[in-house]
Amino acid sequence: MASEKCFAKGSSAPGLVAKGQIRLYSMRFCPFAHRTRQVLHAKGIKHDTVNINLKDKPEWFLKKNPLGLVPTLETSSGQVIYESPITCDYLDEVYTDKKLLPADPFQKAQQKMMLENFSKVTPYFYKIPMGKKNGEDISVLEGELKEKFVKLNEDLVNKKFFGGNAITMIDYMMWPWFERLEIFELKHCLDGTPELKKWTEHMSEDQTVKATMFPTETYKAFYKTYADGKPNYDYGL
Amino acid sequence: MASEKCFAKGSSAPGLVAKGQIRLYSMRFCPFAHRTRQVLHAKGIKHDTVNINLKDKPEWFLKKNPLGLVPTLETSSGQVIYESPITCDYLDEVYTDKKLLPADPFQKAQQKMMLENFSKVTPYFYKIPMGKKNGEDISVLEGELKEKFVKLNEDLVNKKFFGGNAITMIDYMMWPWFERLEIFELKHCLDGTPELKKWTEHMSEDQTVKATMFPTETYKAFYKTYADGKPNYDYGL
Repeated sequence: MASEKCFAKGSSAPGLVAKGQIRLYSMRFCPFAHRTRQVLHAKGIKHDTVNINLKDKPEWFLKKNPLGLVPTLETSSGQVIYESPITCDYLDEVYTDKKLLPADPFQKAQQKMMLENFSKVTPYFYKIPMGKKNGEDISVLEGELKEKFVKLNEDLVNKKFFGGNAITMIDYMMWPWFERLEIFELKHCLDGTPELKKWTEHMSEDQTVKATMFPTETYKAFYKTYADGKPNYDYGL
Repeated sequence: MASEKCFAKGSSAPGLVAKGQIRLYSMRFCPFAHRTRQVLHAKGIKHDTVNINLKDKPEWFLKKNPLGLVPTLETSSGQVIYESPITCDYLDEVYTDKKLLPADPFQKAQQKMMLENFSKVTPYFYKIPMGKKNGEDISVLEGELKEKFVKLNEDLVNKKFFGGNAITMIDYMMWPWFERLEIFELKHCLDGTPELKKWTEHMSEDQTVKATMFPTETYKAFYKTYADGKPNYDYGL
């Protein structure tokens, strides 16, 4: 199901969510939906995926989620959950196998603080490529991003992953943007942050990361159509 | 302790957090810290409060939390937690008496979605007063705020509170801005949303709301000093 072509305006709604399953409304290349795709995979949750044409959203989807955002989850009883961290926390609470969030309240709070901090990092992954496209000087923005990477690097000293020596929720929350570093031509921003660079290497070896990633060439081709204002959500299918 | 004068740059750090207690770093009139003050009160958590001069922050406070934000919590073992929703969730997890968040994962997700939605409401409480102060036409902003109130009003149909018929976390997360409606001269924005207006009345009767509120005259006097660029954090002490 994850390789299905996207649903656009005018499409018929997909069937009901099967009992014992959950549905993810996604867009194959969306980094926010990528978070949820990873959590579904890491926890081995039975699900189907319905991809949405974000430029031309189906009417039936806007009825389910008036904000029209992906990721959105839908349960077989019709409950709808959106906002990527909320969908991931929900999955981790409902599906108790292979917990991704720590049970300890302070460790959980630490992950939430890191996530809040990281929410100030993601905008650079849009601002820098857009700035470049418009022929602007992006050196100041790149400098700011590098400073944020220095802070992330500090969080990783003496740890393999952000939550300790095993992969946890916070790693999956951050990873989608690092998987896209190369296509945004930002890989050199890791040069001054060896721990963070090592983290990207550890992450690349994770089974879930491998199973939910796209090859750089595919991202490149998609983002070209995106930058041209005509995103091909079905690229490669 | 809650009535203590604020600590500023150059001050000596307060003593250690007593065993079996937690400390709140706060500013008496800050709506975000107000969230945490309410949760501490509602759950009957033993704590002390250290107020911070936000214009002239103590060096020792910036060592504990380099972002210098309130609310910040500190445990007796020196753990530091900040960002208002994170502090409130932490307290609700650690102190298991009188749970404020629902146990059901979907109901919890609903509260988080409402909170995310509400994070787009709070900026109006700054933008509108600032616009007025600068002699700008604030009718468009007020119109937008009223639309947001219409959405909140819909969430309250057939319910006394946002989480059902009892007060829960989400109510305390939203309340601080409604307590300040009058001083921001925005009370008329409730005229078209009777359920929301009724909610503010129910909230005003809550013991925790009563115990953590300030009289409108006090807010007015504080916000005058704030608008003049010389906030008197100790007003009324």
